[in-house]
Amino acid sequence: MNKETGAILVLSGPSGAGKSSLISKIIDHIGPHYFSISTTTRPMREGEVDGVHYHFVTEEAFKQDIEEEHFLEYATVHGNYYGTSIKPVKEALKDGKLVIFDIDVQGHDAVQNRLGDITTSVFVTTPSLRELKQRLDGRGTDAEEIIEKRIHMAKREVQRISEYDFLIINDDLDEAASYLISIANAARLKVPSLEISQFIQEWEANA
Amino acid sequence: MNKETGAILVLSGPSGAGKSSLISKIIDHIGPHYFSISTTTRPMREGEVDGVHYHFVTEEAFKQDIEEEHFLEYATVHGNYYGTSIKPVKEALKDGKLVIFDIDVQGHDAVQNRLGDITTSVFVTTPSLRELKQRLDGRGTDAEEIIEKRIHMAKREVQRISEYDFLIINDDLDEAASYLISIANAARLKVPSLEISQFIQEWEANA
Repeated sequence: MNKETGAILVLSGPSGAGKSSLISKIIDHIGPHYFSISTTTRPMREGEVDGVHYHFVTEEAFKQDIEEEHFLEYATVHGNYYGTSIKPVKEALKDGKLVIFDIDVQGHDAVQNRLGDITTSVFVTTPSLRELKQRLDGRGTDAEEIIEKRIHMAKREVQRISEYDFLIINDDLDEAASYLISIANAARLKVPSLEISQFIQEWEANA
Repeated sequence: MNKETGAILVLSGPSGAGKSSLISKIIDHIGPHYFSISTTTRPMREGEVDGVHYHFVTEEAFKQDIEEEHFLEYATVHGNYYGTSIKPVKEALKDGKLVIFDIDVQGHDAVQNRLGDITTSVFVTTPSLRELKQRLDGRGTDAEEIIEKRIHMAKREVQRISEYDFLIINDDLDEAASYLISIANAARLKVPSLEISQFIQEWEANA
């Protein structure tokens, strides 16, 4: 049997591309996992729950965490802070879990730099910009100005798809979910350069 | 829907690790594909069929193909030539098929150099060297001397696992097959750097 090694799955993509729906769909089909919950200073949206969608904190508390180097990565987006705490990630990896990040391209960059060996990254997008606009409008949760900011951001983010391992075009949700399950399962089998030399030693010793 | 783009899946690993059994198991679960059949000058084994397991040719014919640059890669192993013809691979890729290669580490090297962008590679091995010996002995198809050569070769091949994208330890065949199906499906979604700029253009244009 393959060792249950910890691994990281990064999901990025425009707000409105359906990352959250995809994650809900796959969560029961990918073995032991830990969904990394970001910490943010942005206001809670309707329907969001503290500790489920985000850890909502004050800017003061966030800056304190930055100073104490508690973040694996953090960034400011539209004037709000977003960050990922290191501690729960390390623990989940040690327990052999698949750690899932829903972060933006800046966050991916930071994770890639620090934990690239064990990271598999996926960019999720709509089939077209038009489709993205329709979904954001249809969602009805955001003000016009925020939607425009998201569109602007999306245009910049898609420019960086080539930094990702995989691309999923979320046209049909079930199909996209099955793709993502395949990638998530494969992520655990990625050759993590750090453990291979140990594996080879054991493989030969058991002769 | 995700575009049906051609992609390459390379399988390597010691003779006796179960690559052929794995391929038979997954072949009905991975969509349109083309299994690349190698050309070789080695003698046909009992139970092998020309054009199914290999294209068996004379050394003279093989050398002719080398001269005419018909091979994507070729190598000599245990004094026999093995090679992969370019033409059917190109055609299969154009048709959006997943091209599967069962080749050794040298062959992987060559494919990686020429088609690395669209290649996903998997190293398949037994849980231990002992298990490999048992399987090779149990197979009963090879002379003692050939088995020893294979063992020697296997020890060298596992040293190069870190050059592969994924590692599958074939302990339980069904489990290993399900892992391989995940990787094969993910392989089609690998961000192929060449097509991304076109995708981005179309994505933005459709606004």
